[in-house]
Amino acid sequence: MQKPSFLSMSASESAESTIRVGIFGGGTVGGGIVDILDRKSDYVTALTGKNIEVHKICVRDASKPRDFDLPDHASIVTNFDDILDDPEIDMVVEVMGGTTAAKDVIFSALKNGKDVVTANKALIAQDLTEIESLVGEVNKGLESGDEVEFRYEAAVCGGIPIIRSLQSDFVGDSVSMMSGIINGCTNFMLSAMDRDGKSYDEALAEASALGYAEADPTLDVGGFDARSKLKILMRLGFGVEVSEDEISCRGITELMKVDFDYAKMLGGTIKLLGVAKALDDDSVTAFVSPCYVTNDDSLASVSDATNAIEVKSENLVSSTYIGQGAGRYPTANSCVNDIVALAKGDQTFLPFNPGSQKKMVNNFESVFYLRLKYRDSLGITRQCGEICEKHGVSIHSILQNPVTKNDDSAFVIMTEKVDLKAIKNVVADIEALD
Amino acid sequence: MQKPSFLSMSASESAESTIRVGIFGGGTVGGGIVDILDRKSDYVTALTGKNIEVHKICVRDASKPRDFDLPDHASIVTNFDDILDDPEIDMVVEVMGGTTAAKDVIFSALKNGKDVVTANKALIAQDLTEIESLVGEVNKGLESGDEVEFRYEAAVCGGIPIIRSLQSDFVGDSVSMMSGIINGCTNFMLSAMDRDGKSYDEALAEASALGYAEADPTLDVGGFDARSKLKILMRLGFGVEVSEDEISCRGITELMKVDFDYAKMLGGTIKLLGVAKALDDDSVTAFVSPCYVTNDDSLASVSDATNAIEVKSENLVSSTYIGQGAGRYPTANSCVNDIVALAKGDQTFLPFNPGSQKKMVNNFESVFYLRLKYRDSLGITRQCGEICEKHGVSIHSILQNPVTKNDDSAFVIMTEKVDLKAIKNVVADIEALD
Repeated sequence: MQKPSFLSMSASESAESTIRVGIFGGGTVGGGIVDILDRKSDYVTALTGKNIEVHKICVRDASKPRDFDLPDHASIVTNFDDILDDPEIDMVVEVMGGTTAAKDVIFSALKNGKDVVTANKALIAQDLTEIESLVGEVNKGLESGDEVEFRYEAAVCGGIPIIRSLQSDFVGDSVSMMSGIINGCTNFMLSAMDRDGKSYDEALAEASALGYAEADPTLDVGGFDARSKLKILMRLGFGVEVSEDEISCRGITELMKVDFDYAKMLGGTIKLLGVAKALDDDSVTAFVSPCYVTNDDSLASVSDATNAIEVKSENLVSSTYIGQGAGRYPTANSCVNDIVALAKGDQTFLPFNPGSQKKMVNNFESVFYLRLKYRDSLGITRQCGEICEKHGVSIHSILQNPVTKNDDSAFVIMTEKVDLKAIKNVVADIEALD
Repeated sequence: MQKPSFLSMSASESAESTIRVGIFGGGTVGGGIVDILDRKSDYVTALTGKNIEVHKICVRDASKPRDFDLPDHASIVTNFDDILDDPEIDMVVEVMGGTTAAKDVIFSALKNGKDVVTANKALIAQDLTEIESLVGEVNKGLESGDEVEFRYEAAVCGGIPIIRSLQSDFVGDSVSMMSGIINGCTNFMLSAMDRDGKSYDEALAEASALGYAEADPTLDVGGFDARSKLKILMRLGFGVEVSEDEISCRGITELMKVDFDYAKMLGGTIKLLGVAKALDDDSVTAFVSPCYVTNDDSLASVSDATNAIEVKSENLVSSTYIGQGAGRYPTANSCVNDIVALAKGDQTFLPFNPGSQKKMVNNFESVFYLRLKYRDSLGITRQCGEICEKHGVSIHSILQNPVTKNDDSAFVIMTEKVDLKAIKNVVADIEALD
């Protein structure tokens, strides 16, 4: 591809070729993609030397009104094969969601020689390896330029370019940890609970009203959405393929106002973090959990539906990305970046960072926060002390009702850095108490 | 380029071709690049299908001991032409610094058909447009694949991938503002002054001892290094070519302990920010200045030599990148990313985002902080009030010695949001007072 001259910002008719796009999904994200490609069409052509034209948009109900203008050369279709079997379509953009029909669409498109861009987190978490294998099979023996490409930048943390960053900024580096706020709904709720003193139920209602919650909010508040993203990040950063079940997952459903009060006393707040760590050369661990974050940590000021990811690595030490984790234009922007990169001819490393022999270990060291409900406080300090000592858990501090009224009675233990396993033993023994 | 199979992680002998690299500069960054390429050689080959081999390293003094191992196939040379005229060398990496010899090296390399990667901020700030033109000229009529490419990720904020991000994540977006902490030395100093109560001189001495200051620290403390970076960011984000002189520049040399005390009273701290804004479709403005930053701003927690850049844009709303702005491995890592991207065959948009007709305006609205030294406080409030009123400057608050002893006497005015021009008039009138 010869580069276009910028002296005469080339109009679309001077572009060397046209890339015809078929979009599956005419909703929030699909409409955003159509909007952006329309708005920036001259610029994208000038940069890539190609016209990128949306030719078909496949939707469930063609009669439903759309909140975007249909491009001149585009038509609405309702049959998958109208796009999949159309030899004119070069690239398929899947933004319909779900893991059944979407998987069929992506597999058929790749088999039919079409590049694919998707924003489908659930599908990537479930089937990335299978898709990568398919791409490898389809491309076997094909010349460069004829190969199909697959991109999924929008699948993790919407507008944050974390996929490409992991694929291209850490090639000479070694990632040792990835952690961050990777679910917008729960971060919005935690901000509302901490800053505005809202209750859990009020915060959830508000997040739902603003469209931050998934159709089934359990995916958010239970930590499962964050866990899916963490699994994908681990594939990219560590090269490991873990099952989601192997990642310890605790959501925010048990958090109470008193926890925020204690966090404030300690000079921080509570965030739902996804954390994945390389323990040594041979093993990794990961968890999703509410975590205490000090106020001077850059994550503490990441509020509302904003996402943040910190990557620790040998060369770059610490790199943090903060941005919009969801929403029409942030997500559509990431899809457009993928579309333009493919039009420009950039190749994607697929599979990226494969073949790691690292093992997943369901244990990690951390400072733990235990909040106990109790009926009778007589002897509780002694009993907890004995149990912790028995399991080798050092207590950093004990808080008993310093900030709450008596009817909120809470007894809190902050540990020193200890193993998750030891804490599980402590909890089991305490639960067995009268 | 056919993609390598990952099933058998290909060893270097199975790579299809070799990219021979010549490095100018065998110091901190050059040594880091050699280290990384050596450490990750198998992985880079597996990803790109190419061997990347450092063949020559050009240094001033060949007898000087080096802190890195010379690769097997590499030799140390002292004559530029040993690399520039060597037809075997495919790619030149310029990490020698300076703007005279480095410019000759880069120009000759491009003319001789070699790809170029550089970490040279001063040169990019000065000559990016000229280099882009040369690349265009050299590539005229060449086939894709034969074209030369030019990359400079490490030139702005070391390990933060802000160049590529602006070039590839905002193609469908419109940038409205870029701001951030883009000089590590001064941020280290401000952290030491605020957090540790160090004096300006103590902080500067410490920063110099740790290698954070430029050879001439005026470039840091005067804000000029930040201004060079801001100029480059404006070229990428807004497509404008501004002269550095057009960017208002105030360093940190006049900051005193009392300023941090006041900032703390207000619930924040002081950071040296570079800020560039699109005022409307036709004009942009920019400045480098110490700024008050509230504690809930993510920039407030960016301390020591860490850098941070926030990009505001139409689609992504707000994206922040926090990372190491300098240092051996962060900077070398960015160079390696460029080298690998070129080996992979990624094309660079050059010139990127050109042809903007936006004009630079040396004026902007802001809240301003004025600290006055005075001999006699009688009537000072009235006089300042009159002068501000005359120039249409609304006063938000006045602080007179609330946090300091009398011999530190300071009178501080915080304004509402007003024009820089109006403030300049106010300052001129106040200076004319007895």
